[in-house]
Amino acid sequence: MRIERLAIIGLGLLGGSIGLAVKARVPEIATRGWDQNPDVRARAAARGLVDEVCETAEAAVAGADLVILCVPVGAMGEAARAIRAGLGPQAIISDVGSSKQAVAAALAEALPGFRIVPAHPVAGTEQSGPDAGFATLFAGRWCILTPSEDADEAAIEAVAGFWTALGSRVERMDAAHHDLVLAVTSHIPHLIAYTIVGTASDLEEVTQSEVIKYSAGGFRDFTRIAASDPVMWRDVFLTNRTAVLEMLGRFVEDLTALQRAIRSGDGETLFNLFTRTRAIRRAVIEQGQDDSRPDFGREH
Amino acid sequence: MRIERLAIIGLGLLGGSIGLAVKARVPEIATRGWDQNPDVRARAAARGLVDEVCETAEAAVAGADLVILCVPVGAMGEAARAIRAGLGPQAIISDVGSSKQAVAAALAEALPGFRIVPAHPVAGTEQSGPDAGFATLFAGRWCILTPSEDADEAAIEAVAGFWTALGSRVERMDAAHHDLVLAVTSHIPHLIAYTIVGTASDLEEVTQSEVIKYSAGGFRDFTRIAASDPVMWRDVFLTNRTAVLEMLGRFVEDLTALQRAIRSGDGETLFNLFTRTRAIRRAVIEQGQDDSRPDFGREH
Repeated sequence: MRIERLAIIGLGLLGGSIGLAVKARVPEIATRGWDQNPDVRARAAARGLVDEVCETAEAAVAGADLVILCVPVGAMGEAARAIRAGLGPQAIISDVGSSKQAVAAALAEALPGFRIVPAHPVAGTEQSGPDAGFATLFAGRWCILTPSEDADEAAIEAVAGFWTALGSRVERMDAAHHDLVLAVTSHIPHLIAYTIVGTASDLEEVTQSEVIKYSAGGFRDFTRIAASDPVMWRDVFLTNRTAVLEMLGRFVEDLTALQRAIRSGDGETLFNLFTRTRAIRRAVIEQGQDDSRPDFGREH
Repeated sequence: MRIERLAIIGLGLLGGSIGLAVKARVPEIATRGWDQNPDVRARAAARGLVDEVCETAEAAVAGADLVILCVPVGAMGEAARAIRAGLGPQAIISDVGSSKQAVAAALAEALPGFRIVPAHPVAGTEQSGPDAGFATLFAGRWCILTPSEDADEAAIEAVAGFWTALGSRVERMDAAHHDLVLAVTSHIPHLIAYTIVGTASDLEEVTQSEVIKYSAGGFRDFTRIAASDPVMWRDVFLTNRTAVLEMLGRFVEDLTALQRAIRSGDGETLFNLFTRTRAIRRAVIEQGQDDSRPDFGREH
């Protein structure tokens, strides 16, 4: 099964980057796209994110072998219903959502009988919209497929092959396990970043101007993550609630232990943790998951 | 009062960067340095971090107009005692410590009668040691001076002029206020990063290998901060205990409110916060405190 015609629904950072990556790496695949926002459609056409920007979702998916839904996870059901009438029997439906159990349920309900292979490329930046995408976003990053147990093996292979062609490494995982893993590696980090940026901007004793001026001490890193798309992240937390609350509980327990260590002057506990965490950073860099330059290669 | 002879005590990231910045921007200042670790002294000499690496702290400070202590804040008192016998009456003593009330007290106790101007350049990377320093570390960053109320005005001006010459912007602040501001913009962000990296590496349901593979979802940013020097950070938390615990309390309150919003499915609260935090990011970039490129300019 080869992908020859791709439809991208939603032309923001992820959808746009998929279109540009296909153009750069597998130009033999014909691409169509649609976005519910007319301004986004116009920008997508101007940037050439896909070969053809269509005026309706149905038109975009007509004849497509692979349809990728690149909308916030809370909008997946609606997007699936919008394309249903246009889908041919050959179509494989996939997505890029950050929580997978909720998306699988929404797609299964909206598109009974279709071949569905949910996917999550673990890649992104803090920017969003049709001007944010770029062709190399997925290179060297992992894409996690979470097909159901009875999913069509040929369809899974086709989606895996597609992401490999874009430069990603592909892994298969149970959707529930995915949601737990990503709660730790992505959702809780975002929740914490949003929280501390909110806390800092609400203080009375310290002005916002001071917070911004002295942000190079560490805070500025959190402001980047906390600049991520609000709708996307609202939906992630609402749809991956159980795993997020579970992992948040663990985090708060550990934070409470450190709080106690600080209060009691227990330097050894602090030193031991701070030494242990260095090893994780080394592994992240060794496995090509971050820039090895100091400070992410920021300009100084 | 002009600085003609500078002594740097501690030749790690900060001390080394000061030496290299002086060489690049104010080469007319003669520099001497010392570090208690002989291996660090050897690397410092090989890299030319200062004009002369001395064998004792006393020798390094002999004849210096300005001595900058670049050691962990918990070691400031010891470093001050080690230089005391070598200091001339003209010497101004400064430092680069991240918590200022504790350092001011330690220096005042160890060096009664000397002119002391505590300072905190808000700059750094996750790397440490004599190979980590570079000449542009302080360019465009803020350096906060926290002199006591009875400090010598000429000495304060001399230190301010020195940091300006290295490319920094200089601000004066009360030491207690500094410690509160930096608790928010630096200390709590580090504490949170260390905690979540620890939490993630201790899970049983999610393997360390998974945490590392899928770290590009946000977690990897935290691993960078959590790779910072363990001794330095242990000392920061032990010496700025009151402000850190106060700010940690605010953060936990806010986190609890978000936890409740997620549990109850209150998308509006989440959306409102996630929208508000974007403005802070814009201000950080507009004020030149972070790289404006997506993802800090990381290579994709």
